[in-house]
Amino acid sequence: MSNPYNAMDNKKEINIGVLGLGVVGSGTVRTLIENADIIANRLGVRLNVSKVAVRDPSKKRDISLPAGVLTSRPEDVLDNPSIDIVCELIGGVEPARSLVERAIHAGKNVVTANKEMMAKAGGDLMRLAEEKNLDFLFEGSVGGGIPVIQPLKQALAANRFEEVMGIVNGTTNYILTKMATEGAEFADVLREAQERGYAEPNPTNDVEGYDAQYKIAILASIVFNSRIDINDIFVQGITRLSRRDFEMADILGYVIKLVGIGQDSGNGLRVRVHPALLRKDHPLASVNDVYNAIYVRANPVGTVMFYGRGAGPGPTGSAVVGDIMEIARNMRRGATGRLGCTCFAQRNILPMASLQTRYFVRLTAEDRPRVLASVASVFGDFDVSIESVEQRAREEGKAEIVLLTHRTVEHNLASALDVLSRLPIVARIDNWLRVEE
Amino acid sequence: MSNPYNAMDNKKEINIGVLGLGVVGSGTVRTLIENADIIANRLGVRLNVSKVAVRDPSKKRDISLPAGVLTSRPEDVLDNPSIDIVCELIGGVEPARSLVERAIHAGKNVVTANKEMMAKAGGDLMRLAEEKNLDFLFEGSVGGGIPVIQPLKQALAANRFEEVMGIVNGTTNYILTKMATEGAEFADVLREAQERGYAEPNPTNDVEGYDAQYKIAILASIVFNSRIDINDIFVQGITRLSRRDFEMADILGYVIKLVGIGQDSGNGLRVRVHPALLRKDHPLASVNDVYNAIYVRANPVGTVMFYGRGAGPGPTGSAVVGDIMEIARNMRRGATGRLGCTCFAQRNILPMASLQTRYFVRLTAEDRPRVLASVASVFGDFDVSIESVEQRAREEGKAEIVLLTHRTVEHNLASALDVLSRLPIVARIDNWLRVEE
Repeated sequence: MSNPYNAMDNKKEINIGVLGLGVVGSGTVRTLIENADIIANRLGVRLNVSKVAVRDPSKKRDISLPAGVLTSRPEDVLDNPSIDIVCELIGGVEPARSLVERAIHAGKNVVTANKEMMAKAGGDLMRLAEEKNLDFLFEGSVGGGIPVIQPLKQALAANRFEEVMGIVNGTTNYILTKMATEGAEFADVLREAQERGYAEPNPTNDVEGYDAQYKIAILASIVFNSRIDINDIFVQGITRLSRRDFEMADILGYVIKLVGIGQDSGNGLRVRVHPALLRKDHPLASVNDVYNAIYVRANPVGTVMFYGRGAGPGPTGSAVVGDIMEIARNMRRGATGRLGCTCFAQRNILPMASLQTRYFVRLTAEDRPRVLASVASVFGDFDVSIESVEQRAREEGKAEIVLLTHRTVEHNLASALDVLSRLPIVARIDNWLRVEE
Repeated sequence: MSNPYNAMDNKKEINIGVLGLGVVGSGTVRTLIENADIIANRLGVRLNVSKVAVRDPSKKRDISLPAGVLTSRPEDVLDNPSIDIVCELIGGVEPARSLVERAIHAGKNVVTANKEMMAKAGGDLMRLAEEKNLDFLFEGSVGGGIPVIQPLKQALAANRFEEVMGIVNGTTNYILTKMATEGAEFADVLREAQERGYAEPNPTNDVEGYDAQYKIAILASIVFNSRIDINDIFVQGITRLSRRDFEMADILGYVIKLVGIGQDSGNGLRVRVHPALLRKDHPLASVNDVYNAIYVRANPVGTVMFYGRGAGPGPTGSAVVGDIMEIARNMRRGATGRLGCTCFAQRNILPMASLQTRYFVRLTAEDRPRVLASVASVFGDFDVSIESVEQRAREEGKAEIVLLTHRTVEHNLASALDVLSRLPIVARIDNWLRVEE
């Protein structure tokens, strides 16, 4: 298909249409307005906020736009021939997806920060944009303002990726940081986070790990060049963590973080989201509060990490406008669609049961002679080798046993725990968690 | 100027010429060969190592190339009409600079990892490439394999940068990490680093901060859109640091790192390289050993950090091949020269004397009554306000006084130290260092 922008070099202004003026939309529009001069100098062309479609244009907002910019009709953006770039900043799958499709069909380049839409329908939308030689960029969908998608696709493109591991949800990282530093329980920290606006009134999407699931789907699809179906991703949230898990992890030299992980095991990929123990000297271990970070291991670069604020109007606005500028550069050179979908492979996803890693197990048993020997012998029956173990009296007549295993197969560990949970001497399995290198 | 690559879409292979096969050259060639298939799949075109010019083609190397690839004549690369991209991986200013100029004049896109050439002559070379609509990329010149130049120019381009601060020299970071963790003295650690190959036999370029000076010149030029003359950069190395500085910094809650810093003070820029105290919770504080990291503060993104290995064949090869792939993408779309020099401003550099920051001072004085009062009063005379002070007896009849100042003007601090050094009760000013936020 011929490129519609061949004459762009002489165009002095590029018109931007925005769908949605919530947190991300207002951060985007504010960046375009407040940094307009430096953006124009860097690009050699001015970016003009032409139309912003919102549900209720009469709503009071703390961002002031020239008369006629706000509209309630998305078609004022989509059918506007003077608009070259459409920013979808509504969120969720519908109507976002349909609007993006319409924008692409109308020949417009698209920027989005919509992780759910990208994780669920990104492949189709990228193919559609590619057919039309249009840009479709989504840097803001993972890690807020942290440049990560562009570096993975471009600066690091010469690498064979072995692992991508990210702290990609600020709400849960804030909660886990508080639990670790204040010795607080999950429910109490969640309540405080909700009061401070760091957690939603309905926190399910964050605390159950679904938000992280969308993001690791996007990251793993990029680094492994294979579209990841979110239904193939194992997800476990943070609601079952207790302060005692953090205390014992700390004593053993670890922190606990909710991580999204994608790994290439040679014969398939492992993609998962769960809380994990990380050694205190792991680069991700010191990523605290609402900060996000994405860590990659690849050949030949070795390890690389990207760190910053993973959400909020400023960071995400930075990412969206960065994408807009990238498109503007391509438009000026007639090169939109220059960097499209990079999923050329079809990799299979391995089941969790065959995962091999180390494990942290905390259980409560009778406090009497030979209990530890009995527990250890069950692990031995399932070929689970123990690296370290601590036993202390905690409740009346009960002992807490905390152990780290050597590398073992998850199926074996689960079987051992199942047998243990039915032993009369074992009161309960308090928790068990994966340990990542 | 018209673009010579309009017909690229049908070209199945892009020929690469390489100048130099040392650490970076061999890492680059190895990456191109070992990851050839994944690179071709990601790009849609194969990259072919066509010619590699070296001083001595008969030298034994641990990388094997097809017959006819190695040559002793740079002109076999520069005058070869089938070569589209030239990688200058020789290092140093000459003959690298002249060869790059010849390559650009011959219509070739250029990739370099040469920090010294970029810091001293990058502006001229970029203008030359721009006139010819050619790409001239240099991701590997700062931070080895860490994507930083591309993200600063692209994904973060919507930001107004306030500060860029980097640990950009692996050798000195290795030495400082050892001094901190092992309580060792500089000379001993340097010797060990030389034995292990982490420091050069002549370590001046690293330990005196010149390598970091080149790199901060490149980074500051990009973020502030203003060409920085390296002669305007204040540089202080790490040779005067002692184990006692690390001990006292640690007690006060700080680490000591060699940092390159660029700051926008509104009325001018501050660009400098020196050891600095960083609070232990600063994102750069946990960057240890040979790792590098670049930290930026910008509006609206907030703080962002990039972390990874700053040198070596693998990391730098990753960066160079990433740049080659970027050029290949541009060639296929006839868009080389798409992202040229971004220095459109001319900012002035402020003198160190007017720097305002906090300071760490360690001095030795007579151990008798009223000495601290006398010392404090001299600081007071120069408007230097003291935040905290520790005094302990150390040698016979002598006391060590360690203090942190509040934010003050460097000229005032230096004047106070000058007066103090001439007081009979002060044996010596052991050291003083800047404290960064």
